[in-house]
Amino acid sequence: MSGAGTRRGEFELIAALFAPLSKGAPGALGLTDDAALIDVAPGCSLVTTVDTVIAGVHFRSDDPPDLIARKALRVNLSDLAAKGAKPVGFLHALALNDGIDDAFLERYAAGLAADVTEFGVPLLGGDTTSGPGPLSITITAFGVVEKGKALLRSGARRGDVLCVSGTIGDGALGLACLNHDLEISTVLSDELVARYELPQPRLAAGRALAGLATACLDVSDGLVADVGHLCAASGLAAVIGRYTLPLSAGARSAVEQDARWWDEILGGGDDYELAFSIPPDRLADLQSIASRLKLPLTPIGTLTPGQGVTVIADGKPCALERTGYRHR
Amino acid sequence: MSGAGTRRGEFELIAALFAPLSKGAPGALGLTDDAALIDVAPGCSLVTTVDTVIAGVHFRSDDPPDLIARKALRVNLSDLAAKGAKPVGFLHALALNDGIDDAFLERYAAGLAADVTEFGVPLLGGDTTSGPGPLSITITAFGVVEKGKALLRSGARRGDVLCVSGTIGDGALGLACLNHDLEISTVLSDELVARYELPQPRLAAGRALAGLATACLDVSDGLVADVGHLCAASGLAAVIGRYTLPLSAGARSAVEQDARWWDEILGGGDDYELAFSIPPDRLADLQSIASRLKLPLTPIGTLTPGQGVTVIADGKPCALERTGYRHR
Repeated sequence: MSGAGTRRGEFELIAALFAPLSKGAPGALGLTDDAALIDVAPGCSLVTTVDTVIAGVHFRSDDPPDLIARKALRVNLSDLAAKGAKPVGFLHALALNDGIDDAFLERYAAGLAADVTEFGVPLLGGDTTSGPGPLSITITAFGVVEKGKALLRSGARRGDVLCVSGTIGDGALGLACLNHDLEISTVLSDELVARYELPQPRLAAGRALAGLATACLDVSDGLVADVGHLCAASGLAAVIGRYTLPLSAGARSAVEQDARWWDEILGGGDDYELAFSIPPDRLADLQSIASRLKLPLTPIGTLTPGQGVTVIADGKPCALERTGYRHR
Repeated sequence: MSGAGTRRGEFELIAALFAPLSKGAPGALGLTDDAALIDVAPGCSLVTTVDTVIAGVHFRSDDPPDLIARKALRVNLSDLAAKGAKPVGFLHALALNDGIDDAFLERYAAGLAADVTEFGVPLLGGDTTSGPGPLSITITAFGVVEKGKALLRSGARRGDVLCVSGTIGDGALGLACLNHDLEISTVLSDELVARYELPQPRLAAGRALAGLATACLDVSDGLVADVGHLCAASGLAAVIGRYTLPLSAGARSAVEQDARWWDEILGGGDDYELAFSIPPDRLADLQSIASRLKLPLTPIGTLTPGQGVTVIADGKPCALERTGYRHR
């Protein structure tokens, strides 16, 4: 990725850059063992999830190394958020190639360190290999949730209200700004790009929703696609009102410029917001969580009998050009 | 890897080939969710480990797909064995490329299915991506061990006896047979190749050693390198008697042909046997475990003050040409 510098050997790399990220986690065994130990309190279940991100597929090869690392971790933390889990640590499998040098890895590890601190989630172990392919990062994240309280994709009931956290579409529009497909003011563009490069896993919201939401997932593939997954798992359909979607100033500016950006907002992905269903009589509880967390939690539609996702605008269903994640 | 056939989409692939491997594991959520749930019994710790294997680096691109899958899983089970843990499941992150077709994946999944059954270790979840790089498989394996009983690399004491399970060197010599570097009888060559292609994670031995061994790891990088890791973690040195090493008929035949094969036996890796230390007064317990498991557990040396690993043959230290894993 970053040219022709030198690179430490695997053991030196781990000791210098990664072992410090395991501080305070005795189960990491100082990253000098083959495995890690996790103690799970009685009454809790362990939640685990894995995601691989590959240069040129899931991120751009010239993205800043610290942001590559942080996003790779955060997409996994977002999966834990969607389960209502509290993160407890992660494993980190890194497949390097000869183009990755020490300078790149130092910036990469600094980014990871920032998020280890921000989210209180220690590195527990990992694997470092080298091959001919593009840089590839596989993170396995661990969280804990009270037994029986994990939020699932299934569980929504007919008549439940469909809601989302934060604002929708910013990640995909941020990528469009980076690719010079979308031209808006620098201030708005910077905000959208930041949302693409550094998603905010909604951990506090996920934990607050455990016990309230009937189903939940994080929006990574695109709102319509992911709500479709929630519907399929719950055996229901969803109707979304397009004008109820919470939009940032940048996203509003984009659709005012050209209504075709709605496709990107509805289908672009990279939101890492939560989409979830709640019983209609719990909307007041939702509003009190939203004000406590200072995070919009917005009703956007309804779960109905049937299957599939319909988006309504101007009184009629929209034709959806994009309904799922497209690799970049 | 296998040419130009068609390939199912990600969701279809998971439903058709991988979801059946999660049978009997409710925490896998049918592989339709973003995460998996694991319940750990009170009094137990979760043990977790991750390893990536890449085509052309850790296995040969023309290795049989079923064996690629099984070995990718088994190298992780071997790490659990070295901790004395009982496996409970695994996550599977697969990075494909356009050369991988359905026929390849069906054979791959059939191999994985065979080991899911053989080791009673369900698939709990995963991630499937596609990129321009070689096939890459990252498996995160989970096991449980009684709290405080996990075997670690650290913990060996001076005067402890160093031991290994099974026979040493067969994996590396099997690879030498596949590469036509080593020419021996077909019967012996087939046995060595099988040891390279399908390692046997020493799970029963690891569990029997929990509470007996003072330190343990699995031999993947090469006997001398891995014993070196155990020594470093324990703050000791090791002296190994070369003629005490348990060898298979194939390995004996190789060193009789040319003593230079000792380098491969001592440093080649891919053994996936356990190397461990026990107090000298527990040798009788070791022998009873060996006969119960019908698996050789052989004393090969001693832990002494100092650092580093010395191999003695013919009354003097051997010069070691290879002391660690070399990618193939």
